[in-house]
Amino acid sequence: MFSQTTEYALRAMACLAMRPDHLTSAVTLAEQTKVPANYLAKVLQQLAGAGLIDGRRGVGGGYKLARRADHIKLLDVIGAVAPVKRIETCPLGLTNHGKNLCPLHRKTDMAAAAVIEIFGNTTLSDLLTDPEAPKPLCDTNATQQLTVHGRIVG
Amino acid sequence: MFSQTTEYALRAMACLAMRPDHLTSAVTLAEQTKVPANYLAKVLQQLAGAGLIDGRRGVGGGYKLARRADHIKLLDVIGAVAPVKRIETCPLGLTNHGKNLCPLHRKTDMAAAAVIEIFGNTTLSDLLTDPEAPKPLCDTNATQQLTVHGRIVG
Repeated sequence: MFSQTTEYALRAMACLAMRPDHLTSAVTLAEQTKVPANYLAKVLQQLAGAGLIDGRRGVGGGYKLARRADHIKLLDVIGAVAPVKRIETCPLGLTNHGKNLCPLHRKTDMAAAAVIEIFGNTTLSDLLTDPEAPKPLCDTNATQQLTVHGRIVG
Repeated sequence: MFSQTTEYALRAMACLAMRPDHLTSAVTLAEQTKVPANYLAKVLQQLAGAGLIDGRRGVGGGYKLARRADHIKLLDVIGAVAPVKRIETCPLGLTNHGKNLCPLHRKTDMAAAAVIEIFGNTTLSDLLTDPEAPKPLCDTNATQQLTVHGRIVG
């Protein structure tokens, strides 16, 4: 249902939310999110374009969230790469339908509304604060530290 | 959220459901659904491949539903072109997550479950039986007859 790009954008943002005060390099992000580096670069560009992340080039550069994790909804992330839209008027432009959607488009709109509710009510911060759940992208429950090839990265 | 292909497949199936006992030509389908003919041809191929429609080539040929409209769920249609899948195990293959999804993938799975419920509980027949709602794809509430350029088509 969701595109690969959407899944990758969510992974990247969850990864950055774990270290909100640090720049995380593209290499580290790619390893942690298991996203091909070239593909991730395009996703990061879209996230930066949407004002969700800040990037710094060069040695010691990388990416960080542009605002606090509890101020970024998952819906914001999805919206940066593949927005979920309610259906306001007949997509076929049928004049007598207008805002009175037919049952087909009413169902499609219901599905969009359900998805918007689920992702609009969850922030990046919410993903990290459930003590019972495994941390996103981390192959351990015990730590939020990022490791690459077994090394803890700053 | 849903691909253009999914939207077009749903339109085509709703259109065929209105005349379940007749073959509808590809030209008529394209006009009624407002889908470019080349694009629609590919969508029809996928729907036929999934066993949802039968086609007959040549003069007088066209397409019809392969089974009754009340036996085809919208989810079947979506499944033929872009299946909505629940997330059963960690998409990153993290060994300690396994079936215990992290909050990110739990939310994504919740969204998939909501969509599956909405489209899994609705048949093509349900789209046509609400007397209060406009008929899908028809620019009139009063008739289920298909018209092309003002002519009623058989």
